[in-house]
Amino acid sequence: MKQFTIKITCKDEKGLVYRISEILLENGLNIIKNDEFVDNEKALFFMRTEVSGIADPEKVIDQLKKQLGDCSIELSQNESKNVVVLVTKEHHCLADLLIRNQFKDLNFNILAVVGNYENLRELTEKFNIPFIYIPAENITRAEHEEKIKTVFKDYNYDYLVLAKFMRILSPDFVKDFEGKIINIHHSFLPAFIGANPYKQAFERGVKIIGATAHFVTNDLDEGPIIYQDIIKVSHSKTAKDLAKMGKDVERIVLANALKLVFEDKVFIDGNKTIIFE
Amino acid sequence: MKQFTIKITCKDEKGLVYRISEILLENGLNIIKNDEFVDNEKALFFMRTEVSGIADPEKVIDQLKKQLGDCSIELSQNESKNVVVLVTKEHHCLADLLIRNQFKDLNFNILAVVGNYENLRELTEKFNIPFIYIPAENITRAEHEEKIKTVFKDYNYDYLVLAKFMRILSPDFVKDFEGKIINIHHSFLPAFIGANPYKQAFERGVKIIGATAHFVTNDLDEGPIIYQDIIKVSHSKTAKDLAKMGKDVERIVLANALKLVFEDKVFIDGNKTIIFE
Amino acid sequence: MKQFTIKITCKDEKGLVYRISEILLENGLNIIKNDEFVDNEKALFFMRTEVSGIADPEKVIDQLKKQLGDCSIELSQNESKNVVVLVTKEHHCLADLLIRNQFKDLNFNILAVVGNYENLRELTEKFNIPFIYIPAENITRAEHEEKIKTVFKDYNYDYLVLAKFMRILSPDFVKDFEGKIINIHHSFLPAFIGANPYKQAFERGVKIIGATAHFVTNDLDEGPIIYQDIIKVSHSKTAKDLAKMGKDVERIVLANALKLVFEDKVFIDGNKTIIFE
Amino acid sequence: MKQFTIKITCKDEKGLVYRISEILLENGLNIIKNDEFVDNEKALFFMRTEVSGIADPEKVIDQLKKQLGDCSIELSQNESKNVVVLVTKEHHCLADLLIRNQFKDLNFNILAVVGNYENLRELTEKFNIPFIYIPAENITRAEHEEKIKTVFKDYNYDYLVLAKFMRILSPDFVKDFEGKIINIHHSFLPAFIGANPYKQAFERGVKIIGATAHFVTNDLDEGPIIYQDIIKVSHSKTAKDLAKMGKDVERIVLANALKLVFEDKVFIDGNKTIIFE
Repeated sequence: MKQFTIKITCKDEKGLVYRISEILLENGLNIIKNDEFVDNEKALFFMRTEVSGIADPEKVIDQLKKQLGDCSIELSQNESKNVVVLVTKEHHCLADLLIRNQFKDLNFNILAVVGNYENLRELTEKFNIPFIYIPAENITRAEHEEKIKTVFKDYNYDYLVLAKFMRILSPDFVKDFEGKIINIHHSFLPAFIGANPYKQAFERGVKIIGATAHFVTNDLDEGPIIYQDIIKVSHSKTAKDLAKMGKDVERIVLANALKLVFEDKVFIDGNKTIIFE
Repeated sequence: MKQFTIKITCKDEKGLVYRISEILLENGLNIIKNDEFVDNEKALFFMRTEVSGIADPEKVIDQLKKQLGDCSIELSQNESKNVVVLVTKEHHCLADLLIRNQFKDLNFNILAVVGNYENLRELTEKFNIPFIYIPAENITRAEHEEKIKTVFKDYNYDYLVLAKFMRILSPDFVKDFEGKIINIHHSFLPAFIGANPYKQAFERGVKIIGATAHFVTNDLDEGPIIYQDIIKVSHSKTAKDLAKMGKDVERIVLANALKLVFEDKVFIDGNKTIIFE
Repeated sequence: MKQFTIKITCKDEKGLVYRISEILLENGLNIIKNDEFVDNEKALFFMRTEVSGIADPEKVIDQLKKQLGDCSIELSQNESKNVVVLVTKEHHCLADLLIRNQFKDLNFNILAVVGNYENLRELTEKFNIPFIYIPAENITRAEHEEKIKTVFKDYNYDYLVLAKFMRILSPDFVKDFEGKIINIHHSFLPAFIGANPYKQAFERGVKIIGATAHFVTNDLDEGPIIYQDIIKVSHSKTAKDLAKMGKDVERIVLANALKLVFEDKVFIDGNKTIIFE
Repeated sequence: MKQFTIKITCKDEKGLVYRISEILLENGLNIIKNDEFVDNEKALFFMRTEVSGIADPEKVIDQLKKQLGDCSIELSQNESKNVVVLVTKEHHCLADLLIRNQFKDLNFNILAVVGNYENLRELTEKFNIPFIYIPAENITRAEHEEKIKTVFKDYNYDYLVLAKFMRILSPDFVKDFEGKIINIHHSFLPAFIGANPYKQAFERGVKIIGATAHFVTNDLDEGPIIYQDIIKVSHSKTAKDLAKMGKDVERIVLANALKLVFEDKVFIDGNKTIIFE
């Protein structure tokens, strides 16, 4: 008995579920969990179905593709996702991911860590993960990104995770990896979009701070939001305290977002996400 | 174009979604939102589907019943649910429900309020809802419940809501209204099951208090939980403070639970609930 | 034995606590709860002290004023705060306040409700509170505000509460009531500052929505934040759903903010608040 | 200029703040942050004061001790706390603490890790912390605890942290380290006190799970609670899912509790804590 997940995005029309479930039945598959949603504004149909049975998953997908025509159909056999992590200087998200990787707490494999500073090499190598140092100094953004892309070629990755990678990616770079890049933003978007959000939060005297994990796209704003969370703060916290407290939110928000993506529960729908939890 | 919701509970078997979606398609219905879940331990299949189309909903249900045989199939045309509210002395949940009823903030109609004290009559009647006083003094529990049941006969209710009704219902009473009674419990179940939970919470020095809305059944514990929420508290709060703060949680937990039930999103599954949000 | 609260704001200097506690001791007062905080950036000292004893509170305040010179010193004998509520068309915050007023759930008295529409008259008058209708049509903002101010003269209020009053107040008006106006804003400030925040939130695809209660000042932004809270939302909610869900957050955020202010726990410190919970 | 923190617990009486602040003033100290609370039931006075100045902190404490007589007075110069961590098999809390130790994210030093299994040795030693393996097999509880105590003698620790140490400590052991042992409990106490709380939570169908960090004492229950937090869960999670999700709560609850304790913000008050945040 195999268990696998199928993700389908189609232009909405009547009979989709019937046509899909017919194929699942013909293949002797049992539906364990199924979610469907229609985005009425865009007339798009989203479906995620977990099935079990003895059929060949690839064959099922082929039949679905024939039956449904112009739809996006993805198969997931719950395999670990392969990931390259990009970092700058801050350790907290990277350390969290390294631990989860080491103990298989998250459905992923870290293939490599790319950093524009050296300081996270020691931490990364403790966990026997290659650390690739690509400094950004004295070269153009385009040159730096070209070097990063060259590294990517060595790895068969599914996703790029920006774990506090503090450089702005060029539209060209983002375009090349559309839907593949996940970032953790150190504020509750769309509040405090610019630099130094914790300083901004301190100066504004907010009573709540947060973090946002999102796909990186070339849309306005910061791309489709996957997960957000917050903590309450008081007047007695300095900007530095907020930054420190915020790190704990960032770590957990990034981990939760990755869990959703790596369990194939997330669809990108324009500048939004559809998430079947 | 009509929009309606179908709730189906069956013994799990292959082909259920196919057979259901076939009937929906034959009736020209479009699926807007659909959720399915299988409780593997009990081998039960739960499905909730929101559809739109011009078919006669009753006819669709009849066809589904014929097709599926021994399943529970419910139709909801998003009509307001009719409700009788039971209270004792505390006003906060009742007041919240009366306001929501008055302004149609919740998909329900309060038909009447039954109280074992007189003190909430004035509040209830402000909103032109009948208040029926059934004192419990000098009579047995059975006699009191008999009087309450007699009142119920006058109303075509869907649900009974215990909005801080502080009397224990007899197993016989509960049995008569299985799956129809929703209660708000003033603690985060299963913590502090007994009387005076806020005093217990104060004495235990907890840092979080909560409330639980649940169906009332004759199972052990307190019945299937629908919704729970909490707030953080500190050492500086007295037992009285906690009780006061707790009331705000109780109100919102009850309202959220009722919203889920009245939008036909909740299935009872033994001593648990399945909720398709 | 009387119990009262003293709030002190001074320029920070050594010996303040000593000089204050000396006077409290000389008056035979026992300190029950005491909080102090220094805003280092502004070199301001904030102190809130709850005391009990038989001394005349007014006399104690006089002695403190003599001793401390150029400080702000406020006495609170835990008396109910007098409040005028301003509304436009939405009922949810007003209804919540009327219920809390009726049942003394909050340390305040609603003296009157002022509305620029008639539709909340019926609700207000159910609770025997005067409703004063001041339409804004066909007159200038200045004229409208002048009429509102004239009403205020009839009432000995401590605070003005904007319970979904959807008109922008002129800087002149705000200046006249500095530190006296509390507003509920239907977003998690500083996110979605403009109109229609729930529509903005829907379009942005956020996973969390919130509300903010704040003092209204002529500072940039929206004034010192008193309380904020949030709820998690999913892709399946429409803009209308978000607005509805948001109302429950708004009600509770406003009530929590007012509780803090009416229990004399809040100090205004520029565009921030200091809150001793 | 030195900055230090004084924690005082006295039997409540008038004039305490005056007598304390007099000494602080005589020593030229400036109060930065000060909190006081009286537990009326026990007539106990708690004070925490952060001061800055050039006085010798030890001398100040001596003067306070002379002045106040029979009170508990503690000095903290914001030095890192020394900690021995006890573990069994689960890595998640230990890993979190090792990372925080490595990057100085928490005001502590891990001196050693003691485990009754070998499996966390590799992780611990990655971070150059000694791992001491003390198996519990084939010896009595008393013998096992005796061996652990022998290890403790080698370290000048302030606190013992039970980071998922799954053995029950004997009353004798607990007594020897009263107020020094902090434990993370994998449930929202007092719910699910016994073994396998996540399985209990699954079977009960709760909609929220949580974790509790507390001091270990020989009182009933589990000792004074320091910090609790929760996450919402749905019917679709298995007992195993809950356990996995719970680990993230446990990690953060333990880290938050330790932060409070290590910043000297926590007082033990019988079976409760007083926390000045």
